[in-house]
Amino acid sequence: MEERKGGNKAEQAAEALLAWIVAERLAPGDRIPREEELEEQLGVGRSTVREAVKLLASRNILEVRQGAGTFLSPKQGVTEDPLGFVLVQDKRKLAEDLLELRLILEPPIAALAAERALPEDCRQLNRWRQEVEGQIGRGENHLQADAAFHAEIARLSGNGAVSRLLPVITQSVELDGEVTEMRLGRETVETHREICRAIEEKNPRKAWEAMYLHLQLNRREMR
Amino acid sequence: MEERKGGNKAEQAAEALLAWIVAERLAPGDRIPREEELEEQLGVGRSTVREAVKLLASRNILEVRQGAGTFLSPKQGVTEDPLGFVLVQDKRKLAEDLLELRLILEPPIAALAAERALPEDCRQLNRWRQEVEGQIGRGENHLQADAAFHAEIARLSGNGAVSRLLPVITQSVELDGEVTEMRLGRETVETHREICRAIEEKNPRKAWEAMYLHLQLNRREMR
Repeated sequence: MEERKGGNKAEQAAEALLAWIVAERLAPGDRIPREEELEEQLGVGRSTVREAVKLLASRNILEVRQGAGTFLSPKQGVTEDPLGFVLVQDKRKLAEDLLELRLILEPPIAALAAERALPEDCRQLNRWRQEVEGQIGRGENHLQADAAFHAEIARLSGNGAVSRLLPVITQSVELDGEVTEMRLGRETVETHREICRAIEEKNPRKAWEAMYLHLQLNRREMR
Repeated sequence: MEERKGGNKAEQAAEALLAWIVAERLAPGDRIPREEELEEQLGVGRSTVREAVKLLASRNILEVRQGAGTFLSPKQGVTEDPLGFVLVQDKRKLAEDLLELRLILEPPIAALAAERALPEDCRQLNRWRQEVEGQIGRGENHLQADAAFHAEIARLSGNGAVSRLLPVITQSVELDGEVTEMRLGRETVETHREICRAIEEKNPRKAWEAMYLHLQLNRREMR
């Protein structure tokens, strides 16, 4: 009973701290006040402050760096495995389902990016593209850079919900990474280039088609 | 230092317990062994078992029911606000972004449901449809039943990734619920019926179009 009450107090303190963070428009990497100040600000004791910070850290909203302080996490509140894919029994089916989901999502997202991004916004996208190309050329694993390339397109779509969602889906690609990774090097390089060009040219239809082709080639390889 | 070590031990125990749950193919609502058995099974002490269970509970993988035991959570590892929408400053823009995302996702999902569901699978869908209609008729808030209707279509798509993702997005609709909720009663009833009919008739194109119309009417009302 005692513990439950403490938990609720900590949860309330966590909610109050979260509301303050949102109201202050803090950004990833910003530091939050020290424990003494939070005690006063939230009107609770030290142990409740610590519990509240722990709760927000478990949600990837805060990040405690030992000795340096507590900061807004770069993960921006997106939790590890937020959709609970770990519980799915049939990982092969999950990999197929994820690719089907990407085929639904990513062509229209690429089209939105082409519509809304300015050519000068594409520098980071081209950097990821080159990173992937370099790794493919050297026969290295390029899954992480590939996920970053796709996440950057989501960011360029200007849709905040999309840019939070897509990394969750593309990072899960590692599930079946070994299946397709090495065989599709040339196709990946070519279709990535087409996607970049279409976005830079602000051609949504071409971006849609290039992304669709890119993912379909992956799907065919998987089968 | 002491605490960190303890944390890592508990995390390892949590991972081991999770692996066991997946291997045993436990389902939501299934009970996991008691603390004494877990101590033996995982080869750790009681406090580590408790910490491990707490960790999995915070990920909505387990659910501790006081006095009854510990069970697999019906939330299936999908965390509260898994994409960290609480941190988005501009909630109006977020509501628009979510509707744009739904316009990308849900028409193809309805088409998949029409392709794959058998007519007898549609009973639960029709129950949710009637629930929404009843609530609209009585002038009640129908947002939760509406979210359940859309989640059921995602389930009928047969894509496990989609059925885990969609509730996260439709539940966020409450953000702008007040804006559209009451005005769109008649349109909601009509387009929901069209969607159900198309899925029962196994007509993917009609399901796609009915869902698209349904969401576009919402979007127009929002603007």
